[in-house]
Amino acid sequence: MKADATEREIDDVLRVVKELGFRAHPLPGATRTAIAVTGNQGAVDPSHFENLPGVAESIRVTKPYKLITLDLRPEKTVVRVGDACVGGDELAIIAGPCAVESRAQAFAVAEAVRRSGARFFRGGAFKPRTSPYAFQGLGEEGLKILAEVREAYGLKIVTEALDDHGVDMVERYADVIQLGARNMQNFSLLRRAGRSPLPVLLKRGLSATLDEWLLAAEYVMSEGNYNVILCERGIRTFAQHTRNTLDLSAVPAVRRISHLPVVVDPSHGTGHNYMVAPLARAGVAVGADGLIIEVHDQPERALSDGAQALTLEQYEQLVADVRAIHEVVTPAPVGG
Amino acid sequence: MKADATEREIDDVLRVVKELGFRAHPLPGATRTAIAVTGNQGAVDPSHFENLPGVAESIRVTKPYKLITLDLRPEKTVVRVGDACVGGDELAIIAGPCAVESRAQAFAVAEAVRRSGARFFRGGAFKPRTSPYAFQGLGEEGLKILAEVREAYGLKIVTEALDDHGVDMVERYADVIQLGARNMQNFSLLRRAGRSPLPVLLKRGLSATLDEWLLAAEYVMSEGNYNVILCERGIRTFAQHTRNTLDLSAVPAVRRISHLPVVVDPSHGTGHNYMVAPLARAGVAVGADGLIIEVHDQPERALSDGAQALTLEQYEQLVADVRAIHEVVTPAPVGG
Amino acid sequence: MKADATEREIDDVLRVVKELGFRAHPLPGATRTAIAVTGNQGAVDPSHFENLPGVAESIRVTKPYKLITLDLRPEKTVVRVGDACVGGDELAIIAGPCAVESRAQAFAVAEAVRRSGARFFRGGAFKPRTSPYAFQGLGEEGLKILAEVREAYGLKIVTEALDDHGVDMVERYADVIQLGARNMQNFSLLRRAGRSPLPVLLKRGLSATLDEWLLAAEYVMSEGNYNVILCERGIRTFAQHTRNTLDLSAVPAVRRISHLPVVVDPSHGTGHNYMVAPLARAGVAVGADGLIIEVHDQPERALSDGAQALTLEQYEQLVADVRAIHEVVTPAPVGG
Amino acid sequence: MKADATEREIDDVLRVVKELGFRAHPLPGATRTAIAVTGNQGAVDPSHFENLPGVAESIRVTKPYKLITLDLRPEKTVVRVGDACVGGDELAIIAGPCAVESRAQAFAVAEAVRRSGARFFRGGAFKPRTSPYAFQGLGEEGLKILAEVREAYGLKIVTEALDDHGVDMVERYADVIQLGARNMQNFSLLRRAGRSPLPVLLKRGLSATLDEWLLAAEYVMSEGNYNVILCERGIRTFAQHTRNTLDLSAVPAVRRISHLPVVVDPSHGTGHNYMVAPLARAGVAVGADGLIIEVHDQPERALSDGAQALTLEQYEQLVADVRAIHEVVTPAPVGG
Repeated sequence: MKADATEREIDDVLRVVKELGFRAHPLPGATRTAIAVTGNQGAVDPSHFENLPGVAESIRVTKPYKLITLDLRPEKTVVRVGDACVGGDELAIIAGPCAVESRAQAFAVAEAVRRSGARFFRGGAFKPRTSPYAFQGLGEEGLKILAEVREAYGLKIVTEALDDHGVDMVERYADVIQLGARNMQNFSLLRRAGRSPLPVLLKRGLSATLDEWLLAAEYVMSEGNYNVILCERGIRTFAQHTRNTLDLSAVPAVRRISHLPVVVDPSHGTGHNYMVAPLARAGVAVGADGLIIEVHDQPERALSDGAQALTLEQYEQLVADVRAIHEVVTPAPVGG
Repeated sequence: MKADATEREIDDVLRVVKELGFRAHPLPGATRTAIAVTGNQGAVDPSHFENLPGVAESIRVTKPYKLITLDLRPEKTVVRVGDACVGGDELAIIAGPCAVESRAQAFAVAEAVRRSGARFFRGGAFKPRTSPYAFQGLGEEGLKILAEVREAYGLKIVTEALDDHGVDMVERYADVIQLGARNMQNFSLLRRAGRSPLPVLLKRGLSATLDEWLLAAEYVMSEGNYNVILCERGIRTFAQHTRNTLDLSAVPAVRRISHLPVVVDPSHGTGHNYMVAPLARAGVAVGADGLIIEVHDQPERALSDGAQALTLEQYEQLVADVRAIHEVVTPAPVGG
Repeated sequence: MKADATEREIDDVLRVVKELGFRAHPLPGATRTAIAVTGNQGAVDPSHFENLPGVAESIRVTKPYKLITLDLRPEKTVVRVGDACVGGDELAIIAGPCAVESRAQAFAVAEAVRRSGARFFRGGAFKPRTSPYAFQGLGEEGLKILAEVREAYGLKIVTEALDDHGVDMVERYADVIQLGARNMQNFSLLRRAGRSPLPVLLKRGLSATLDEWLLAAEYVMSEGNYNVILCERGIRTFAQHTRNTLDLSAVPAVRRISHLPVVVDPSHGTGHNYMVAPLARAGVAVGADGLIIEVHDQPERALSDGAQALTLEQYEQLVADVRAIHEVVTPAPVGG
Repeated sequence: MKADATEREIDDVLRVVKELGFRAHPLPGATRTAIAVTGNQGAVDPSHFENLPGVAESIRVTKPYKLITLDLRPEKTVVRVGDACVGGDELAIIAGPCAVESRAQAFAVAEAVRRSGARFFRGGAFKPRTSPYAFQGLGEEGLKILAEVREAYGLKIVTEALDDHGVDMVERYADVIQLGARNMQNFSLLRRAGRSPLPVLLKRGLSATLDEWLLAAEYVMSEGNYNVILCERGIRTFAQHTRNTLDLSAVPAVRRISHLPVVVDPSHGTGHNYMVAPLARAGVAVGADGLIIEVHDQPERALSDGAQALTLEQYEQLVADVRAIHEVVTPAPVGG
C-alpha cells in the first residue's frame, strides 16, 4: 500500500482479496502497510489489485509452473531415445548441418558425426527464415534423407517442425521434434507436440524469460508428453559482436528449479565459426547435459548459416575437447 | 579485409564473389582493402565470405524486402474495411476488452466504443497465455459474440488468430485478422494469413528488429494479401517499470521505408492503466495512423490484463484528447 | 521459503530477521510459507536471506529513495533559473548545437533559438566521446563563448560537466550543470553537483532502471541541492534503427513517484534528423516539462552528432508544432 | 544511395566526400548505387553523409581503435604485477570480499585466498553504491587494511578507484587499479589511470558494446599506460534470473581483435552464490586469463553483495575445479 493509504483503502483491498477466495494478511510496517495474499492454488494475477485506491504495487511471489519443478520430481529426467539418452551420465552430442541440402552433404557430415561417437544427428528439413525469399528447406525430401542417415549410421534424428503438419511428418521420419526459438510461444504447436510420442527439444525464445521458457515446457507436459529437453541458444541483447548472447547462466538456473535436462547451442548462440568451440567448452563446463553443433562439409557453400558451421576437422577437435572437460566437471547435484 | 591480408587472399575473395555470379569491386584504402559486392538481385548472405582467409568482416548493405517498400509504392496504403479504413486521413481507433468474457461485457464495452465514434472493436476469443493454466478465451463462442457486436453496433471486428484453424474461424466471424507478437515469426501462419481475403493487423514481436517485422509483413504480402497494418506494441528491454518498452520511433522508421500504415498499442506497450492515456497521446503525436486500446467495463474483474484496461470513462476522455492532438499534428509526408 | 522447507529452517530465518532488528511475519500458504519483513527504516538488502537453508527467494518490496518522492513533497518541483523555469506551466525548450565549435556557429544558432522564444541554450564545451581520438570540445574557450551568448541573447546556459574541475568551470560561466548519461552513476560527480548552487540536469543512463535514475537524483539531493531536472534520452536495447530507444513511458512513471520535472531529448534519443520532430511532439504529448533539441546552422559540417542535428528551419517548425500540442495536452495531475 | 537517387544527388555526395579530403568510389549496382569512402586515417563519422539528399544509409566499416589491436601487437600482452602476472600461462585468480569491512574479515579471507595459491587479493575500500544511503566502504582505512594483507600474505592488491583522489590513494596502497562498470566511460578517470604506473583492470560497462569497451581501454593506453586487463562482468539484458547476463562470448571476441588479457567475474556476472562456481568453470573453459571471485568468511553478514559471495569452503572447491579445467583447455592461439 502507499504510505498515505487510508484505513478504508486498506480495508477495501482486504475485502477484494477475500471475495476472490484467498486469505489476506495485513502487515503494518514502519512507513507503510503490506498485504500478503495466500491460499491460492495456482498463481494469482497481481493485476487484480494494482489499480485499487491506495495500492502502491502488486508483486507476484509464487511461480505458476508445476510439472517442470523439482518439487514434483526431485531427480533429473533422463530423456531416452532408443538406446541413446539426454540427461544421463554421458554428454549428449547432437551434430549436423543447419539444413539438409542433399543426400551427399548429409551423408558426408553424418559420417564424421558417427565417427566422433555422437549419438544424435541434426539437420533442418523445414527452415524458419526471416525472409520469404530465402531457402526454406527441402521439406519431406529432406526428412527422407534424414531417415536414410538414421538407417545407415544408427544416429537418432533431431529435426525441427514449424507447424502441425510438420509434427506429423517429423513423427513419421525422425526421433526428436525440435521446436525453434521463434515458436517457443506458439502455444498451438506446443500442445500438438505435447500429444506426440516423440521427445521434444524446446529452444528458448530470443527474448524469453526463464519463467516463460519453463512455462512453454509446462504446455508440452500438460498434454502428457514428459520427455522435454530444454535448449539454451542465446538471447537478443544490445550486443552486436555475436548473433545472439549465449546465456549460460540459464543452465544452473534451470537446474535449481526443474528436473528437465538442458543442452546448449553454441552455433546459433554466437553465429560465428571461431566462437563455437570456446562456447561449447563453456557450455559443458557450466554443466549442460549436451550440445547442439552445426557442422558442414563445405561451410562456405552452406545454403543457410554458413558463418557459424564448423568444418568436419574443427568439429572432431571440439568433440575431443568437450569430452575432456566433461570428465573433470563434477556434476552439480540436482537442486544445487 | 584484414590489414595484413595478402594479395592472394584478396584474389581468392574476388574469385569466390565472381563464382557466385556477382561483381566484385576491390577498394584499396589507407590501411586496408575493402571489397564491395554488387549485381545481386536479392540480398546476399554475408556469411558466405566471413570465414574466408584474410576477411575481417562481412557487412550487408542492402535490405532483403521488396513489396513493403516505398520504392515499389510511393504513397501510403489505405487499408479499407468496409466503409472504415486505416491509413487514411481519419485516426483509426480500435478499442475493446483484452478478452471477450461474456455477451454482457462485450456489449457494455461496445456501447461505449460506438459512442466514442471509433469504427473498430477488438476482443480476443483465442488468447495466447504464457501459462497453460490461465484463461485461454471463449473460442468460437467468443467469435459469435463478436459477430453480434458487429451486427448491433456496426463496428468492424479485429480479433486474433493463433493458428490456421483460428484464421478459418476469424474469416467466418470477423473483419481483420490480428497476428500477435508471439506469432510474428510463425511463418506458416503468416503465409496462411497471406492467402486470406481479410486485412491483417501484424503486431511487432517482443524482440523483433525493424527488418524482421517488415519481412514478416513481406511474408503475408508475398502470398498476395497486400492489406497489412503494422502495430507497434512495445519491445522487451531491461526496463522493469513497464511490461514492455513502447518504441514510438518505430512509427517514423517504418514511414521512411514502407507504405504500410502503422498503429500503436499503448495498452500492451505499457501494461499499466495510468500510462495508457499519455502514451496514446504520444502515439498520435508521433504520427501513427491509429491506436488499439484495451477497455473494460469492470477492469478489476477482467480475466486477463486487467491492470492495463481503461474504464469506460477513462477511455472516453482519451478519445477526446487524442482527437485534439491528431488535429494539430500535420501528417509527416510519406518518406519524410 | 521452499515448499519442502523444514520447521527448523523457517525458525532459523525468523531468528536472523530478528537479530537484524526487524519484525518477521510468517505467512503459511497453501503450498509454502512466506516470511514478510517489516520495521526497517530504509531498504533491507534481500541478499541477507537468500542463501539461508530453505529459502526459495528473497524479494524487496519497498524502495530505497526518500527525497525524490511525492510522499515527501506532493506538488511538482519548479526549477527556477533566473526568470526562466522548468516544471512550471510553460514548456521549457533547451536548444543549441551538440558542441560549441566557434563563436560564429554559437551565435548563428543562438539567434534562431532566441527568435523561437526558447529560454535555454545548450552547447557542449567538454564532450564525452567514445574514442580518445574524436573531437573533445573547446573546453574553457567554449564556456566563454557560451557566456557571451548568455550576455547577448539573455538565454540561460545548460552545459555538461564531466568531472569536478568541469563543475567548477560550469559554475563560473553557465546556469545549469548537465550530467550526461555515461556519468549517471559517477557518484563522486553526483555529490559534487549536489554541493553546487546551480540546478542539475541529470540524464538517464543508457541502461539505467527507473530506480537507479531516481537514486542518482537522490545522491544530488542528499547533498542539499534540490534543483534537479531529470532527462529521458533513450536507453540501449537490441533495436538498431535508432541510436537509442527513447523510453517515453519514463515520463508518466517518474510523475507517479516523484515531484521532479522531466524533460525529453529526442535528438540523442533517436540519433536521426528525420525522427527528431515526431519524437519531440510525442515527448510533449506524453507530458514532459520540456525538450532538449540539437540544432546546427550547418548540420552536415558538425564536428559531432551531425546526423541528429536539426537545421534552423526544421527547428523553428518543430517549436511551432510542439507548442500547439502543449496547448491541447491537459497536464496530468501530479501522482496521476 | 536510394534506388531513386538522381545523378546530381550522387555527384553531390561524391563532391562532399572529396571536400572532406577522402577518396570516393561510386559502385553502380543492380538496383542502386553505393559509394565507398577510403583514404581516411582514422574513422570518419558516417553522420556526415546521412542527411545529404538521395542518401539511403551511411555505414561505418572500419574501427576507430589502434593501440589495443593485434595489428599493432600480434602476441598477447602479459601484465606483470611484481612476480605475479595476468595473461601468462598460469590462470590468474583474484579473490576476496566485495568490500573490506574490518581487519579481522580481510585477514580471515586472505588466509584462505593465500592457501588456495591465488596471487591476487581483491576488496573494495571505495564502493560505488546505487543508493546514497548504503554502506560506501571504509575509504583510506580500508586501503590500509589491504596494505597489511599485502604485507602479511604477499598477495597483490586489486582495488577500485571511483575518482582522481581514489586513484592517488590506490597508487599509495595497492597494486592494480580497478575501474568499475559504472565508470567505464568516465573519460576523465580513464585518462587519469592512463597516467598511473599501476596496471588497470577495466570492467566492461553494463551496456557497453565490444567497441566501446575496447575504446575505453584505448583511452587508458593513449595516455601511455599499456598494462590494461579487461574484465567481463555481465551486461544488462531483459533476463531477470541473474543480476547481469554474463557474456562469455566477449572473451573470444576480444581475443580475435586485441592483445589485451581478459578475466571473467562470475560473482557480479550472476549475483547468485549457487551460480558462481558453474560460471567460473565456464569462464576458464571459454579461455579467460583469470577470474575475479567474491569470497567472504560470513556471507550472510556481508555489508554488500552477500548473496553472491562464496564461503571459504566453496571458494577452495572452486579453485580446484577451475584449475583442472584450465589444464585441459588448450589455449586458443592469439587471433584465433
